[in-house]
Amino acid sequence: MIIALLTDFGTKDYFVGAVKGIILSINENAQIIDITHEIPPQDIKSAGFTLRTCYKDFPKKTVFVAVVDPGVGSNRRAILAETEDYYFIAPDNGLLSFVFNKERNFRVLELTNEKFFKYPISRTFHGRDIFAPAAAHLSNGVKPTEFGKEIKDFVRFEESQPRKVSKKETEAEIIYVDHFGNLITNLTQKDLPESFTIEINGKKISRLQNFFAEAEKNGLFMILGSASFLEIASFQDSAINLLNIKVGQKVILKENS
Amino acid sequence: MIIALLTDFGTKDYFVGAVKGIILSINENAQIIDITHEIPPQDIKSAGFTLRTCYKDFPKKTVFVAVVDPGVGSNRRAILAETEDYYFIAPDNGLLSFVFNKERNFRVLELTNEKFFKYPISRTFHGRDIFAPAAAHLSNGVKPTEFGKEIKDFVRFEESQPRKVSKKETEAEIIYVDHFGNLITNLTQKDLPESFTIEINGKKISRLQNFFAEAEKNGLFMILGSASFLEIASFQDSAINLLNIKVGQKVILKENS
Amino acid sequence: MIIALLTDFGTKDYFVGAVKGIILSINENAQIIDITHEIPPQDIKSAGFTLRTCYKDFPKKTVFVAVVDPGVGSNRRAILAETEDYYFIAPDNGLLSFVFNKERNFRVLELTNEKFFKYPISRTFHGRDIFAPAAAHLSNGVKPTEFGKEIKDFVRFEESQPRKVSKKETEAEIIYVDHFGNLITNLTQKDLPESFTIEINGKKISRLQNFFAEAEKNGLFMILGSASFLEIASFQDSAINLLNIKVGQKVILKENS
Repeated sequence: MIIALLTDFGTKDYFVGAVKGIILSINENAQIIDITHEIPPQDIKSAGFTLRTCYKDFPKKTVFVAVVDPGVGSNRRAILAETEDYYFIAPDNGLLSFVFNKERNFRVLELTNEKFFKYPISRTFHGRDIFAPAAAHLSNGVKPTEFGKEIKDFVRFEESQPRKVSKKETEAEIIYVDHFGNLITNLTQKDLPESFTIEINGKKISRLQNFFAEAEKNGLFMILGSASFLEIASFQDSAINLLNIKVGQKVILKENS
Repeated sequence: MIIALLTDFGTKDYFVGAVKGIILSINENAQIIDITHEIPPQDIKSAGFTLRTCYKDFPKKTVFVAVVDPGVGSNRRAILAETEDYYFIAPDNGLLSFVFNKERNFRVLELTNEKFFKYPISRTFHGRDIFAPAAAHLSNGVKPTEFGKEIKDFVRFEESQPRKVSKKETEAEIIYVDHFGNLITNLTQKDLPESFTIEINGKKISRLQNFFAEAEKNGLFMILGSASFLEIASFQDSAINLLNIKVGQKVILKENS
Repeated sequence: MIIALLTDFGTKDYFVGAVKGIILSINENAQIIDITHEIPPQDIKSAGFTLRTCYKDFPKKTVFVAVVDPGVGSNRRAILAETEDYYFIAPDNGLLSFVFNKERNFRVLELTNEKFFKYPISRTFHGRDIFAPAAAHLSNGVKPTEFGKEIKDFVRFEESQPRKVSKKETEAEIIYVDHFGNLITNLTQKDLPESFTIEINGKKISRLQNFFAEAEKNGLFMILGSASFLEIASFQDSAINLLNIKVGQKVILKENS
């Protein structure tokens, strides 16, 4: 059974080793897959975006362990979400909202059964002491309901949506910046008129490309990316270096007249 | 059988690929686990700290390959340490001291049997040519004594310990800085009076927290961390960025009167 | 069956997770090995060098997926190369030249059979939509010829070779810089006279060492490295930091008289 890990633990310390060790000490046959451990520290939204964009590529019954957990040690709950095809183990801080928003049928259980925790439980590393053991026990065939009771009041936030601000203008947002420096907006195909321009930080971008290599070097352009969102990119350069922006920054889409 | 890797090889080159390839070419069923490859180059103490803090989370019979090896190609020896539960393969440069200091019963053998090396042996990459093949053969069932003879004069250094410098003062040390910028001291629960203050680089820190989110943003505080040491941290910020310090820096613990 | 990944995707995004998910959803028993995902963006030559230097360490029948793909979405082809011992799946952009230059017998097929693609095919992420599924199907036993027809006009470039520029001088090149800051030249044992000096950026280096720890701190020296090339290194320091150079820079080897 596959256990896929997504955290903000970084890869330089003992954190990832400890999580993997605990999983394997409970289920030596678990197949552990690293999605990433480089979510920016405490950035729940980046974690949710990343998980949302790849979880459906995994085989059914994959157990995802998603830990970005600024509230570790406080009274925030630990949860197990079960969808039609997958299991998700995470802190109850909204990280799984991005999954919930894509799923119709799912239930959420609180992880309370101490039988499945690692003792002593630290105040600062529930990835090792609560989330990893739960995933390993689940992969061993423990039933979701054995971990705790279903809850309905789990944390769930709405994702930012593009917003019509005038007849020809839509306000959208940069929701992610990838390794290549491409800026991912929250605009999808259905938001795009036939001909349009994006305004960002005083710059106008109107070239829409089908693939990267169409561009001249250094020019900014738009492209429908692999996460199904409109991206702002630059061929053989990094859009984030050419535009002085941050995640959360607004952009204006203007329909060309 | 699990082979867990901990090195300073970084993750951008062919080094990790070569090590994994060699292991799999000797034991295609080996389950290779990356602990980290981002130990700072040649930093034997960081490697030892990292290994020490997670090895007991792994299942029994795990083979750890720990390679931080500034003396590669010189006459430093290659060793295999066998504890009650685990195997460790490493250069004989003190890296395993941190393991030895936690174990009662163990023996150390020198890797001399050339039958288990990869030829030709390079002068600069024994991770690939000596350590990885030894781990793979061990995971295939080769007995430790087949690799070489037991030695008693392996390199072993003491770890830095807190030191009482006056009736109410203890001198301690920053022994590690993690990915989140938390500063790990060598102080453990038993060193801590009921009420105390830490002085570091002219700053006094007296707030002791149970978990991260108790804090206001930017304030420095102390917390007993997941490696069982007292840590200096800052919520949603990085303590290393707030204090101008390095590993090895002394801190003073003062009992409050 | 082993599927080894080498890409410029970085490790912070959903890219690697998506590729692994797709592979496992087609062959849940595939053993996925990360060589590296930190090839500098779009740097086909670094990718080729890295792959070339470690692929022969892997067991026979390993499937390598090598994706550095600036032309993704354009009409560049996707290929499967079959050598005596291995399979390689990559864009047809010269990345595999470094493998072809080491192999006598191999054939190259174009990946055209849409049955083995993931739909819908994005314009920007063929790692997920074309290369990963092909690797997974191949590991499931699909025959190479089922993916498409053999081609002869695949992209292949020559690697830079040292060049005699006078009786006693050879012009060589820095072809790679590793994690430790060591500078790898394209000079091998056969290019080296008994006694010689390297000139690089106005500096002369004449000390040839057998291993790193022979050196004094900070001194630059030469060493025959683990990739079989002459390297310029510095013990407990980084040669790249001491010399102001880049990949591609020329160096002069002078035979000492």
